[in-house]
Amino acid sequence: MKAELITPFVDATLNVIQTMAQIRAEPGKPSQKKDDKTRGEVTGLIGMGGDELSGNMILSFEKAAILPIVSAMLMEEFTEINQDVIDAVGELTNMITGGAKKLLAEKGYTFAMATPVMLSGSEVVLTQLSPAPIVSIPFTTPSGTFWIEANLAPVTNSSPS
Amino acid sequence: MKAELITPFVDATLNVIQTMAQIRAEPGKPSQKKDDKTRGEVTGLIGMGGDELSGNMILSFEKAAILPIVSAMLMEEFTEINQDVIDAVGELTNMITGGAKKLLAEKGYTFAMATPVMLSGSEVVLTQLSPAPIVSIPFTTPSGTFWIEANLAPVTNSSPS
Repeated sequence: MKAELITPFVDATLNVIQTMAQIRAEPGKPSQKKDDKTRGEVTGLIGMGGDELSGNMILSFEKAAILPIVSAMLMEEFTEINQDVIDAVGELTNMITGGAKKLLAEKGYTFAMATPVMLSGSEVVLTQLSPAPIVSIPFTTPSGTFWIEANLAPVTNSSPS
Repeated sequence: MKAELITPFVDATLNVIQTMAQIRAEPGKPSQKKDDKTRGEVTGLIGMGGDELSGNMILSFEKAAILPIVSAMLMEEFTEINQDVIDAVGELTNMITGGAKKLLAEKGYTFAMATPVMLSGSEVVLTQLSPAPIVSIPFTTPSGTFWIEANLAPVTNSSPS
């Protein structure tokens, strides 16, 4: 995936976590994801579809990372991953993808967004049918780590349209 | 979800399974999904996004249902859920959603498709942030059951655009 497609997802992630939870996240080094497990204990994903590009945005949080974020977002202390936390991960996935969508539209890349799906549990076996490698980027917060996997690749001819 | 939005997914499912595997599937009664578990042992999902409608199409197979389908598709006997079977579920999800997309476009409903994501394992905890109830439809084949959960709802104002 080209850097000019990845950077907007990183920028949108930092902006959304800072704005919604007043928590500063530090992005780490991107790497190609080669295994088939979700990284964290609660995961949001949202499909992106356009005429030229399609893919998925996946956001996966360690429990230690997400609890302070949702506690700050909802102004209530959460100590376990419950449905409110899971729904908040869906909202964060939606906001980050929406933020990246706006930044990419300024560069001439357009797509529409699906609605968020959330998975809970460790090491859920998740793979993608994508013509492009999946890039995983870790983000460190004061309490734990979360990851984004942004996958936006040219639409291939084999896809129905 | 309105019947005129559901029927194209049912028709596309029957058509794709018949065409790709020469297996006749019988649709059962749609019901509202109220729990948060995937129904089968291997699951495909694909996001759909448009100006007016967005959602997800989820296709979940019992092991006994998917093995004969993929064996017929790939002309090779499969006895376990391996990566080939998982990828075939992604392809089936793509073809069914593509078929429903064409049928819906004839009625004036348009959306773009994301790329398929596949989950493997029983009872994966999966929920959706959707303004509409999730409709689940079982399909019976001679060897087992699979389910579709088609969720296509009007885009709400709270979604980023």
